[in-house]
Amino acid sequence: MTNFKALAEQYKSELLDKVVPFWLDKSQDHEFGGYFTCLDRDGSVYDTDKFIWLQGREVWMFAKLYNEVEHKQEWLDCAVQGAEFLKKYGHDGQLNWYFALDREGQPLVEPYNIFSYTFAVIAFGQLAIATGNKEYEEIARKTFDIVLSRVDNPKARWNKAVPGSRSLKTFDLPMILCNVALEIEPLLEPDFLRQTIDTCLHEVLDVFYRPEIGLVVEALGKDGELVDSFDGRKLNPGHAIESTWFIMDLGKRLNRPDLIEKAVEISLAEVEYGWDEQYGGIFYFMDRLGKPRHELEFDQKLWWVHIETLISMLKGYQLTGNPKCLEWFERVHDYTWKHFADPDYPEWYGYLNRRGEVLLPLKGGKWKGCFHVPRGLFNCWKMLEELSRREQK
Amino acid sequence: MTNFKALAEQYKSELLDKVVPFWLDKSQDHEFGGYFTCLDRDGSVYDTDKFIWLQGREVWMFAKLYNEVEHKQEWLDCAVQGAEFLKKYGHDGQLNWYFALDREGQPLVEPYNIFSYTFAVIAFGQLAIATGNKEYEEIARKTFDIVLSRVDNPKARWNKAVPGSRSLKTFDLPMILCNVALEIEPLLEPDFLRQTIDTCLHEVLDVFYRPEIGLVVEALGKDGELVDSFDGRKLNPGHAIESTWFIMDLGKRLNRPDLIEKAVEISLAEVEYGWDEQYGGIFYFMDRLGKPRHELEFDQKLWWVHIETLISMLKGYQLTGNPKCLEWFERVHDYTWKHFADPDYPEWYGYLNRRGEVLLPLKGGKWKGCFHVPRGLFNCWKMLEELSRREQK
Repeated sequence: MTNFKALAEQYKSELLDKVVPFWLDKSQDHEFGGYFTCLDRDGSVYDTDKFIWLQGREVWMFAKLYNEVEHKQEWLDCAVQGAEFLKKYGHDGQLNWYFALDREGQPLVEPYNIFSYTFAVIAFGQLAIATGNKEYEEIARKTFDIVLSRVDNPKARWNKAVPGSRSLKTFDLPMILCNVALEIEPLLEPDFLRQTIDTCLHEVLDVFYRPEIGLVVEALGKDGELVDSFDGRKLNPGHAIESTWFIMDLGKRLNRPDLIEKAVEISLAEVEYGWDEQYGGIFYFMDRLGKPRHELEFDQKLWWVHIETLISMLKGYQLTGNPKCLEWFERVHDYTWKHFADPDYPEWYGYLNRRGEVLLPLKGGKWKGCFHVPRGLFNCWKMLEELSRREQK
Repeated sequence: MTNFKALAEQYKSELLDKVVPFWLDKSQDHEFGGYFTCLDRDGSVYDTDKFIWLQGREVWMFAKLYNEVEHKQEWLDCAVQGAEFLKKYGHDGQLNWYFALDREGQPLVEPYNIFSYTFAVIAFGQLAIATGNKEYEEIARKTFDIVLSRVDNPKARWNKAVPGSRSLKTFDLPMILCNVALEIEPLLEPDFLRQTIDTCLHEVLDVFYRPEIGLVVEALGKDGELVDSFDGRKLNPGHAIESTWFIMDLGKRLNRPDLIEKAVEISLAEVEYGWDEQYGGIFYFMDRLGKPRHELEFDQKLWWVHIETLISMLKGYQLTGNPKCLEWFERVHDYTWKHFADPDYPEWYGYLNRRGEVLLPLKGGKWKGCFHVPRGLFNCWKMLEELSRREQK
């Protein structure tokens, strides 16, 4: 029988004794503000550029820990110093968020990437909740408005698709908006929130989830049709699985068990499809017609894919009691702790080859920061604790 | 002792009996024109989009074979039909070359990529030499002018670097211009040709080759300084090695043995640095400071890297007699024929994992077409033949 109590302790201790101290100690740039995220195996800094995705995500994470675990001053200070750096240097003055800055805060890469904006929204939103600071609240709300206004052309002038040609809409933005909306719920008008959530749910469940293949696709034609091209065949099981726990959260929030059931069904189909029977772990990219991909990293095993799967499986089990969710949680738990956790230094590896061997020894980089590992440990810890309490009743 | 005669026969037969017939039979789209390049292991088409890089390269390859191997009508017809498709659909009417078209020729991806232009230049240039067609000549010459006019900002409006920030210049364009200039030599004014060649040689040998590390870097600051950033630390040994045989060709053309000696020295340094002592083969990307890369494919073994190395090593041996070049040719020859050649179907695999196992079974895709394998086989065959003749004297 699953020992939820021991598991809760394992996730909690990994989070609070190892991962959070790692980022607190190693990532803060006390000279220029913001965070280093290019951290080697032992936490030493190997590059000082600052990527807005990861700056925003770390602000969010420390504000979230402050709000939901404990009112620790050092967590709040860490979030505030990152937010102040972002507020000053992260955007062009009109809340158009750059993609990358140098260490001092000079912009390097233009605001071409809409996810720089979404992570700014959750950063300032969560920190507004922690501090009551009206300026942070305004930044979150206004940036969210910009995101919504750009849903139809998120890449703006950096879009390379020829206008009027086969233009595809992609899963990533509606998927993440499901999460963003709940993250900043206290800052939004109830009607506006409800409408945003309805649109996101519709896009994920009725549009990008395709009942004829039982999976979520990454891109569709403008009229919602399947397209037989590299982009149109692309599957990203981890991405789809991550979206299912956003939907379960919305199902709980809206008191709609039908949403939860649907999300659990999708998450199980995705993990079964994405699992590598030969070497274990979940593939990064797949092709819905089994054709070769051009992403050369397609067969690698990435930390976030596995951590998001842990959350979805555990949440599915917690909310529905489906035993398949618990089985998959345990299988992915075993794989994840065996391969991603580093026995000698805190924080987890991010990139394994297909065999599950460490491909890159880094703990943080251009795309891996203080986000999926602590968020996943936090979510799993809390759910495991609740499951453990239930057992004791 | 190396049996140049047998090797020449091996390369010739692979080219003319297997690889060229593969592309001639499998890649031509007799319905809409142009070429399919997304070909699976056995040559079956798995995607019909048409990428301008690969369309231009295949025109060039068949025109080159026609010009330098044999006046086979089917080779010329194959080149001409591809060129007519490109002429009609490949650009916007102003010789701005798109990146991708759909099967019918509708543009999909905007002309953001300068290498679509460079491959159009060599395609129409080589075909103008084959046919004497003035229109093809004009297309080549005018497109080359556009390339030269865009050297300072090749990505045009799709450039994501913030103006005035740390902007880097990259090795790829000057490197490829060394080759393009010689490819279309008969179409250029001698003074203009000489000036273009001088600029390219200077950029490669005096700017991107860094004597303090003995290697070519992929990107430098605007004043030619080394930069400690992801882009500024990036090494691509195959790319550097490919450039050395372009320079050896220029050295021969300009009757400058000093250029040849320098190029041989660089090519040997690169192959020694890039060779994977553990599993064999040459790494795709490396970091000059040994820091982690963000390209997740960094440790893979790619076909073109190895084929270009075969050319450089053999050319170095042919022109200087340096025995190290022959040793490296033999080592890379063994690796390449063992891992990239497919015993059951024609054409070679393109993508191996670090261990040298096939990562993707495709023979062509978005980036692999009718180019490096046949060009490499052709060049090696001709050099081996000449070395074999020398021996017999």
